[in-house]
Amino acid sequence: MRTTYAIGVDVGGTRIAAGLVERKGRMLKEARTLTPKTGPFGVIDVIVDLIGEVMGGTHPAELAGVGIGLPAQIDFLKQSVEFCTNLPLAGIDVRSLVMSRIRHDVTIDNDGNCAGIGESRFGAGKGVRDFVMITLGTGVGGLLFLDGEPYRGSRGLGGEIGHMVVRLDGAPCPCGGKGHIESYLGRPPIAARGREVAREFRGQAIRDMAGGDPEAVTAEDVINAALAGDEIARGILLDAGAILGEALVGIVNLLNPKLIVVGGGIGESCGFLVERAAEIIAAEALAGRRDVSVVQAELGNDAGVLGAAALAFDEHDAREGLHR
Amino acid sequence: MRTTYAIGVDVGGTRIAAGLVERKGRMLKEARTLTPKTGPFGVIDVIVDLIGEVMGGTHPAELAGVGIGLPAQIDFLKQSVEFCTNLPLAGIDVRSLVMSRIRHDVTIDNDGNCAGIGESRFGAGKGVRDFVMITLGTGVGGLLFLDGEPYRGSRGLGGEIGHMVVRLDGAPCPCGGKGHIESYLGRPPIAARGREVAREFRGQAIRDMAGGDPEAVTAEDVINAALAGDEIARGILLDAGAILGEALVGIVNLLNPKLIVVGGGIGESCGFLVERAAEIIAAEALAGRRDVSVVQAELGNDAGVLGAAALAFDEHDAREGLHR
Repeated sequence: MRTTYAIGVDVGGTRIAAGLVERKGRMLKEARTLTPKTGPFGVIDVIVDLIGEVMGGTHPAELAGVGIGLPAQIDFLKQSVEFCTNLPLAGIDVRSLVMSRIRHDVTIDNDGNCAGIGESRFGAGKGVRDFVMITLGTGVGGLLFLDGEPYRGSRGLGGEIGHMVVRLDGAPCPCGGKGHIESYLGRPPIAARGREVAREFRGQAIRDMAGGDPEAVTAEDVINAALAGDEIARGILLDAGAILGEALVGIVNLLNPKLIVVGGGIGESCGFLVERAAEIIAAEALAGRRDVSVVQAELGNDAGVLGAAALAFDEHDAREGLHR
Repeated sequence: MRTTYAIGVDVGGTRIAAGLVERKGRMLKEARTLTPKTGPFGVIDVIVDLIGEVMGGTHPAELAGVGIGLPAQIDFLKQSVEFCTNLPLAGIDVRSLVMSRIRHDVTIDNDGNCAGIGESRFGAGKGVRDFVMITLGTGVGGLLFLDGEPYRGSRGLGGEIGHMVVRLDGAPCPCGGKGHIESYLGRPPIAARGREVAREFRGQAIRDMAGGDPEAVTAEDVINAALAGDEIARGILLDAGAILGEALVGIVNLLNPKLIVVGGGIGESCGFLVERAAEIIAAEALAGRRDVSVVQAELGNDAGVLGAAALAFDEHDAREGLHR
């Protein structure tokens, strides 16, 4: 049977969102809340509640299933959570725990993968065979689309762009490594840089965004100060853009992609950061620099939910032997 | 018609080799010489001479064609040389120039790609669907095998592992970039480090390998001193192995490969350098570290020639509508 709806859930380090989505990507209902800090089962409870909220009176037979994007390394074939930096979900059987309570099929995937699938199906990557999605949020994630399909690697763990080394012996990364992209480009390092500057005289605009307390500065405060015209805040984000650019030079040389889509909260709100990265690629990458465009994601916060729903439709159709 | 032989040519920054190869990878005849420094047409002349030498009395109808691996970024579809760091071949129509003189079909590809195809068909990568080949020679090249096929990217320029950024604002790279893997791991940076040390007292073993002249030290002198037991030389190569390891941590996190094959002159002669890289991956990569083996290439200097010949067989069979 050709089902009409799927539910997508996007679990982030900061927020969890769920949506009821039509096949063509229209979001009919949405719900979101903050990510609880009460351990794995608190997170599961919130996921189940949000699914119930958006499902409403949908007839079970109309629902293809539920897709859940998690900020974790997922063994896609086994549907297990292998590694999770920002939430205590490693080894937790999220899929079974949710499925046993909602009584619908559930598929889990990496959150960056879901955002990439969303952008590829409904957004900036529509119709592009070879592209790279990178999401700058609390963590840094991504997805490779190679020859028209998500490329997940030998055990589905690939696409962890945030954990490529860009500085030998560099700053510590939440994953335990050193000098990874995520050491410089997630919300925590940008907030840390913002706090550093906010303690100085020149950091007044950033300090003001945090109500005058330098220690309360968040990445969003830095972004908001930059968007309000503060050059110091803008400088912090341009530096981040330059690091993003250097990392993407390596990606362009390695993969010769047609398109790079920069998403996540930071990528979507800071066009000038993305432009800075594009300038670095144009100046420093090999011949592939002429093939690649660097753009902001189009679906905003919805990419993860829409992509997770697309995944649920795909898995449903594969089970039923339908082609999309 | 099912042809019996193909000729593979491997053009390196230092040497050019050609071989007459059977379908199953047996090399029947081989010839090699130093790469001339007399400009592009000098290189073409040597390629044509070597092809003539190994072709001998082979009947034209038995020959599938010629494959040539070049140390350059190749637009594989257009069969053009886009960019070449170590030889003056950029923009030179190598394929037509050789084809017009030998009157056989010619296919060109990146030299790292050819070595990768060789290892995948006849060597360390045989039967592995998802693997990464990295060659440490004068330059640093490579090839991605994804889902069982070489992945070349949107315009065939991909696989330039040597030009991934591992140190922001790092040492200059021959390509014009900064802090690339090739800035630290090709023959020139290893020779430079060897010369630095050879000028000091502790560098005696390395100095001796170069006949007592610190300024004459080559990468091979450093390798030979290390293989003869000199700890100082070994230290230089272990440092290089650590940088290789950090770069490969990024690759493992990005691509979740089953296997990494390290080839090229440096990779093949220095097992301990490859082991150092493997240790770093085991310690620092995310969950994908459990999936990946890191091994030395098996075909030695022949990988490029065998892979170029395999490419010639493939292209011939594709033209004739045969499946391999």
